[in-house]
Amino acid sequence: MITKPHDHYREDIPGRADVADTPELLDYYAQLDALKTGALWTVANKIEPWHPKSASVPTLWRYRDLRDHVLRSVDLVTPEKAGRRVIYLNNPGRQDVSAAVGWLYSGLQVMRPGEAASAHAHSASALRFIMEGSGAYTVVDGHKMTLGVNDFVLTPNGTWHEHGVSAKGSTCIWQDGLDIPLVNSMEAGFYVVHPELRQAVTHPVDDSTATWGGVALRPQIHGAAGTWTKNYSPLFKYEWAPTYDALQRMASLGDSNPFDGTLMHYVNPLTGGPVMPTIGASMQLLRPGEHTLAHRHTGSFVYQVAKGRGFSIINGQRFDWQERDIFCLPSWMFHEHANASTTEDACLFCFHDLPVMQSLGLYREEALAENGGRQPVA
Amino acid sequence: MITKPHDHYREDIPGRADVADTPELLDYYAQLDALKTGALWTVANKIEPWHPKSASVPTLWRYRDLRDHVLRSVDLVTPEKAGRRVIYLNNPGRQDVSAAVGWLYSGLQVMRPGEAASAHAHSASALRFIMEGSGAYTVVDGHKMTLGVNDFVLTPNGTWHEHGVSAKGSTCIWQDGLDIPLVNSMEAGFYVVHPELRQAVTHPVDDSTATWGGVALRPQIHGAAGTWTKNYSPLFKYEWAPTYDALQRMASLGDSNPFDGTLMHYVNPLTGGPVMPTIGASMQLLRPGEHTLAHRHTGSFVYQVAKGRGFSIINGQRFDWQERDIFCLPSWMFHEHANASTTEDACLFCFHDLPVMQSLGLYREEALAENGGRQPVA
Amino acid sequence: MITKPHDHYREDIPGRADVADTPELLDYYAQLDALKTGALWTVANKIEPWHPKSASVPTLWRYRDLRDHVLRSVDLVTPEKAGRRVIYLNNPGRQDVSAAVGWLYSGLQVMRPGEAASAHAHSASALRFIMEGSGAYTVVDGHKMTLGVNDFVLTPNGTWHEHGVSAKGSTCIWQDGLDIPLVNSMEAGFYVVHPELRQAVTHPVDDSTATWGGVALRPQIHGAAGTWTKNYSPLFKYEWAPTYDALQRMASLGDSNPFDGTLMHYVNPLTGGPVMPTIGASMQLLRPGEHTLAHRHTGSFVYQVAKGRGFSIINGQRFDWQERDIFCLPSWMFHEHANASTTEDACLFCFHDLPVMQSLGLYREEALAENGGRQPVA
Amino acid sequence: MITKPHDHYREDIPGRADVADTPELLDYYAQLDALKTGALWTVANKIEPWHPKSASVPTLWRYRDLRDHVLRSVDLVTPEKAGRRVIYLNNPGRQDVSAAVGWLYSGLQVMRPGEAASAHAHSASALRFIMEGSGAYTVVDGHKMTLGVNDFVLTPNGTWHEHGVSAKGSTCIWQDGLDIPLVNSMEAGFYVVHPELRQAVTHPVDDSTATWGGVALRPQIHGAAGTWTKNYSPLFKYEWAPTYDALQRMASLGDSNPFDGTLMHYVNPLTGGPVMPTIGASMQLLRPGEHTLAHRHTGSFVYQVAKGRGFSIINGQRFDWQERDIFCLPSWMFHEHANASTTEDACLFCFHDLPVMQSLGLYREEALAENGGRQPVA
Repeated sequence: MITKPHDHYREDIPGRADVADTPELLDYYAQLDALKTGALWTVANKIEPWHPKSASVPTLWRYRDLRDHVLRSVDLVTPEKAGRRVIYLNNPGRQDVSAAVGWLYSGLQVMRPGEAASAHAHSASALRFIMEGSGAYTVVDGHKMTLGVNDFVLTPNGTWHEHGVSAKGSTCIWQDGLDIPLVNSMEAGFYVVHPELRQAVTHPVDDSTATWGGVALRPQIHGAAGTWTKNYSPLFKYEWAPTYDALQRMASLGDSNPFDGTLMHYVNPLTGGPVMPTIGASMQLLRPGEHTLAHRHTGSFVYQVAKGRGFSIINGQRFDWQERDIFCLPSWMFHEHANASTTEDACLFCFHDLPVMQSLGLYREEALAENGGRQPVA
Repeated sequence: MITKPHDHYREDIPGRADVADTPELLDYYAQLDALKTGALWTVANKIEPWHPKSASVPTLWRYRDLRDHVLRSVDLVTPEKAGRRVIYLNNPGRQDVSAAVGWLYSGLQVMRPGEAASAHAHSASALRFIMEGSGAYTVVDGHKMTLGVNDFVLTPNGTWHEHGVSAKGSTCIWQDGLDIPLVNSMEAGFYVVHPELRQAVTHPVDDSTATWGGVALRPQIHGAAGTWTKNYSPLFKYEWAPTYDALQRMASLGDSNPFDGTLMHYVNPLTGGPVMPTIGASMQLLRPGEHTLAHRHTGSFVYQVAKGRGFSIINGQRFDWQERDIFCLPSWMFHEHANASTTEDACLFCFHDLPVMQSLGLYREEALAENGGRQPVA
Repeated sequence: MITKPHDHYREDIPGRADVADTPELLDYYAQLDALKTGALWTVANKIEPWHPKSASVPTLWRYRDLRDHVLRSVDLVTPEKAGRRVIYLNNPGRQDVSAAVGWLYSGLQVMRPGEAASAHAHSASALRFIMEGSGAYTVVDGHKMTLGVNDFVLTPNGTWHEHGVSAKGSTCIWQDGLDIPLVNSMEAGFYVVHPELRQAVTHPVDDSTATWGGVALRPQIHGAAGTWTKNYSPLFKYEWAPTYDALQRMASLGDSNPFDGTLMHYVNPLTGGPVMPTIGASMQLLRPGEHTLAHRHTGSFVYQVAKGRGFSIINGQRFDWQERDIFCLPSWMFHEHANASTTEDACLFCFHDLPVMQSLGLYREEALAENGGRQPVA
Repeated sequence: MITKPHDHYREDIPGRADVADTPELLDYYAQLDALKTGALWTVANKIEPWHPKSASVPTLWRYRDLRDHVLRSVDLVTPEKAGRRVIYLNNPGRQDVSAAVGWLYSGLQVMRPGEAASAHAHSASALRFIMEGSGAYTVVDGHKMTLGVNDFVLTPNGTWHEHGVSAKGSTCIWQDGLDIPLVNSMEAGFYVVHPELRQAVTHPVDDSTATWGGVALRPQIHGAAGTWTKNYSPLFKYEWAPTYDALQRMASLGDSNPFDGTLMHYVNPLTGGPVMPTIGASMQLLRPGEHTLAHRHTGSFVYQVAKGRGFSIINGQRFDWQERDIFCLPSWMFHEHANASTTEDACLFCFHDLPVMQSLGLYREEALAENGGRQPVA
């Protein structure tokens, strides 16, 4: 029998495992293996790395490359057969879990006027960010939200939800963001198809924003509905216009964040915390010519260019982007963002797993110390 | 020696004190008194009432009665001598503590263009609600806020603050709301005059709203300033326009609260909780012709009519109000509000001690069961 | 008409009110008074003091003075007529509200073997600390707790509760601590007599400590009872033995708190916070010969000597105490405690309104800077 | 080119993907693949399962099988070369991530009298549960804890920690429990060796329990140390004696939890929450003859038999255990536990990832409805 080497993770550093294979040890390892055990020192340096090395690959998906393929799915499959017509982003390092980056899934979905997907619920949490088209809507637990470009909508863990496009609208494409890979990895995924495949709209259209979308206001709601006990935001739709307005006002103050420009996190207005426990989202404005400093932190991030053009440098690799492009940032990679225009601002939408990193106490951050805080580009 | 009767709180109900005075007992009470003690049964029924009986008197202060007196103070005293030119509301039942109702203080302050009050800090929490004039501003810990009619501004416990009117403005009148009586009653009042009587403006004007005044957004602030550890809102100014807009949108949904009409609480956007730990504030819209049902609850409330005209019925007494009038609602009194116009909405600003009642677990509420939920008017 | 002077709170300090009475102003004040208003500058310096000046008087109640009077009440009144046979502590500065100090009520209650008080509920929160006797018990919402000397028991806001002494016990005296004055001042007091004057015991005796009294343990309770949503502790009884044991262990570490000796706060084990939202409690050990440094802070405190003898200095006045004596500490008075024994430790039980001061953001603290941190005694 | 089939996850159910491969679609899929994308409907049914199917295999590790191998490691490797002499539990379904179950790592570590491991820190959270021997100790951030059998100690994320056995002790074996696989999967693992390989003991021995190990007590600590801002418990050591005592007292009440017997969660005494944000722990007592009902829930669990003997049925498979055996429970598997003795109680220690499941909103639970709530055994 040929035994595979066990000592290939050795490190000659005090406090680290550094045990050479010997015939006696190899025999011992075989006995341990038979007992469904192993010797820690054969894997310790592998499972206790000095710092994170992400399996995900920084990747840019150009919308001009993807758009035709997305639209073509309309002709290739029906919503009934496909469930949803979605082209998902398949990170080269995460194909085993169908993730765009880390434990985050993302896809581009297309729907024609008059179409609607069937209603379902799952323990994955989801958001939709509208990329193009008019007349899109989402129904969440009886609340119907109309959606325009750069709006996004939540469909949290456990809610009945369905998407559609009004017969009077145009073909819509949006980006889905979900934590499906995370939920699967936690072995906690449940899926239910709505018994009638459609849910009733039981509230006035867009009541979610009319109720919860004020500036620093909390409605006094009568009765049991007045007490929200869910762990996600009661505001399901976040509109582009007030968000962009807020970013412009803050940017006008003149002192943007050196690493993030002008960045606003979308929050649950009842708590000030993230919109859902597993997925956070933000919109970020880069002023004309702004180029942020490089830093790195734990967490996985999917960006969509909501406005403008520019580039990001991720671990020394430059990615040029323009409106509607999507790119990802894996954990613990240095990154900086630049607006390539000297006259127009640029906006990046982002969703990420920071709420997870923070709940679990795993967030860490570090500025690039060398080179004036800017990465050399390979 | 004539001993005062000790048995005048007797109640002939099982579980309540019902002890008649006797010579032996009166002698005993005198001995207890000498030891700085007393017999509980002589006061038990007094200090353990069946339900709250407020010492405050429901009162309406008509602005047309007060305005001239407020303006006249400009000629009678200087800001330097008076500290602040304020006419305070002196509830007939709370004159001992200079309160408008319960433990809440309120007053009307006037300032001419170019005037400014000296800077100070105190452990009372305060808010200002602008009633008339242009050019008013407040500075809180180096943040300058410009203020228009129906805006309100916080000057929380411990902050350096000062008020003024721009030289280009007009004479301004605003309402002050403070918890001075509460803080005094808790024996926790501290007061400090700013060593230079003026504080520097160290941030861009109106940076508070530009930073914290977005819709369900939290700014990513760099460095130590990014972590807010105070127990009050980082948003100091709440503007009328977005508030009224939010109320109109919510009112348009059609299902207002039977007891409150369409009511929004102003909140700390970082927590969703009250703006300060001791004072809450809300704005309430009554649709044309709307007349709410009667209920009562603990807590003390000061209302100002921000818009429109109507009436409120408090414990069977009707108070007719119009724009800029102020009235108070004492604890545990039935109340209902009505908009007297059939075409225009009416708005009531309110500040109150609900945050205190809720922190201390003392909030209770009860709907009027009789008479279809409407009070007969005396 | 003789008008009372309005200018007796004048202070000749920039930023403070300093307005002399004039005939014109006195006339103006009279007009304001008729409108239920006043001029702030006539009362500003009164209602905005530089620092707290407590109305309460530091007071020591010697148990040897009180005990006979407490016992005598047994012969003077029946529980049926008196409700409860309690001698309450009547602070000379707070007789208007029957308080021992600040907004805290305290009294000594006596009960003979076989007696029981009627069951009731109120919105005041209460605790009982056993001073002498055996066989005492309290029933709270169907949970019966047996009580020994130096144990204390909660009867929180809204709970049905009743007290008694087993027929096999001896005459018991305990100290009651309540927030009745606070609840009255907040105009939030409700009182209900139990419809049957007695409640059923629906759980095993002492199940509260058996369930919640572990060391850093939370029971997994099945069903709805597993979710505790009250704002007070589910542990109702705090026993002396484990408390004294914990204090001794901590004291043995050698580094006691300079201002507090070795002090433990009793907590709600579900939250780590205070036992009730309005009343906190602590037990404090002074090692043989220990004499703490002086500091002052806001909040009102009632102490009972659970063990030993010593003295406390409060705003320069010395109070010598021994086991079972009670004394109070008013807000913002310097205080230091000393154990008079060089061989035995001393323990002070205390209940106070720190939870209120902290919820409302009114807690402040200051060490005595002069004289090596020790007060000169008058 | 042979294209692999894409349609093997088809389900003929409305709302699920059911698209057959066609040449045109296979060509389309190839084009998508080249763009680092895929068609969701080819994987949707795979990544959105109806309910969790754990990759982990229910496994029992008998201590009588493992103990000799653990002891033998003493002769085979030095602590210096091995880092730590640990035999880890390698779940057949999780060998890729060296996990005992789910994302949890566990191993058995041995140390001889006088030995000590080098100090390090990492972003994994850890606990140690003592299985046999005397004289074991752990140092965490300068706090030294002495450890006896069935005690356990925390070494939270980011703390400097090291383990050893006193020269006067005996050879010790303990179980390590860590979230290394989880932290690696979140790409958030950092590791640092202490610059001096040893840390100084800067506090009195066992100060952690003397300070924080009281019953429902919180120490008043002077100065900055009085404010604990970490996200883990300040109590590092949980002792067997008070835990077993608490379980016995609760069990004596007679109404154990049908699914869990008498179970206590170890908590952070400052919050009542789990001991660390990623790992929870509990001790569970089964009364003589007790056999719980079957239920299933999400989350991964590692059990160690602290006392007694019995069996557990996991998804229909029976595992007989005795003192010191270890077994695991994967997510969403039915399980029930039985004490095989009719005279002695049995105790199961457990660590798990419930804090993660609850933070992320992924906890679900279901009782077995059939067969009287008991599983048929295969």
